[in-house]
Amino acid sequence: MTSPQALYEGKAKIIYATPDSQILRAYYKDDATAFNAQKRGSITGKGEVNCTMSSYLFQKLEVAGIPTHWLGQPSPREMLVRAVKIIPLEVVVRNIAAGSLCLQTGIPVGTPLEEPLVDFYYKDDALGDPLLTPARIQLLRAATPEQLEGLTQLSLSVNHYLSQFFRECGITLVDFKLEYGVDDQGQLLLADEISPDTCRLWDANESDPERRVMDKDRFRKDLGQVEEAYQRVLEQVLAHC
Amino acid sequence: MTSPQALYEGKAKIIYATPDSQILRAYYKDDATAFNAQKRGSITGKGEVNCTMSSYLFQKLEVAGIPTHWLGQPSPREMLVRAVKIIPLEVVVRNIAAGSLCLQTGIPVGTPLEEPLVDFYYKDDALGDPLLTPARIQLLRAATPEQLEGLTQLSLSVNHYLSQFFRECGITLVDFKLEYGVDDQGQLLLADEISPDTCRLWDANESDPERRVMDKDRFRKDLGQVEEAYQRVLEQVLAHC
Repeated sequence: MTSPQALYEGKAKIIYATPDSQILRAYYKDDATAFNAQKRGSITGKGEVNCTMSSYLFQKLEVAGIPTHWLGQPSPREMLVRAVKIIPLEVVVRNIAAGSLCLQTGIPVGTPLEEPLVDFYYKDDALGDPLLTPARIQLLRAATPEQLEGLTQLSLSVNHYLSQFFRECGITLVDFKLEYGVDDQGQLLLADEISPDTCRLWDANESDPERRVMDKDRFRKDLGQVEEAYQRVLEQVLAHC
Repeated sequence: MTSPQALYEGKAKIIYATPDSQILRAYYKDDATAFNAQKRGSITGKGEVNCTMSSYLFQKLEVAGIPTHWLGQPSPREMLVRAVKIIPLEVVVRNIAAGSLCLQTGIPVGTPLEEPLVDFYYKDDALGDPLLTPARIQLLRAATPEQLEGLTQLSLSVNHYLSQFFRECGITLVDFKLEYGVDDQGQLLLADEISPDTCRLWDANESDPERRVMDKDRFRKDLGQVEEAYQRVLEQVLAHC
């Protein structure tokens, strides 16, 4: 027996092949990075939290009619997913202004947006994941116009579902990043993960701008109690019936 | 008699009121800045070159059906313009990949684009003039959807005209930045200037990547012979009949 060979190791996950070429196994690490990997660290238990929370939410979204890559969670840190061709775009949906949006527009942090804003970023670490306009997406052939429209509509549907879900958990969904793949039939599938690494989540019952943060911003901004925040998000999500 | 009072002093121009409130006087300076004013200097004669070249091209564009703010050039460094409300967007039209587009997409410098690319940037020095998507333009109310469509179509028309014009002058129009204002009837007017400060211009008969540069990149990148390049552009433009 040989140990399985990693197909790809990313900042937070390792992807392995399985005997079925249509299925991959994602191993969720505790490694944490921020600011395009200029800041590195570890969040104990993060792998389990993110794998478990993502598995739970992918199943919920499937029931709500959003196709995802999720197939199963054989162990706390392992997810079986459909092998898809990843679209090289990060789709960010924003309900409240935070992060780079504020730096780039001058809109104050915490400003509710009248309509959800959908931003597309180029998945390219070497370029620093730059913001892309629809015209630049076409220029780079990162997605077809039809895929771009599909990504926008699917992401708004995910936002609609998750915003209400988190609200019922006592958490405000500020913004979040999604990634998508295309299966061999050309269908768009929601991929990657949905976790405190990829969502800005604020405690709905807390107004203090530091205490309310329940996501990776605690790590990015050295706010402390990072592990506790991740665990609390998972508990509140799993307590939702 | 008192000296006229400046309404506004920018990086390259000073704007004065005139006895007619509908008319402003722009004085073109030799001051040069780059990288959001982190680099500062002076290009002797630039004010005259930019004012004269812009006056010439605005008149040509008017004849070609593009409404502009230009009214007259009472002296080599002075332009009379219609008082308009400036739209806080820089519209960049690109025919060949160069500058920030290459840094943000990885497309090699000098790659011809299949279609002209129209990029919008937020006119805000404090924010570093960030790239805006159409959705962010709506969020910031920087332009209405109708204005955005008008800016795109006018800019493509300007590009169509200027690309051919410069080609006939022996110059390749790589990319350029436009600004627009709205008059009191709500009409979009091309404003600001069209000059080696705002256009990337390459000598069409020169393939060396440094020698071919005839625009502000000579100043940005310390390529030398900046004044000579500006004068040569003006001569080649004015020699065009």
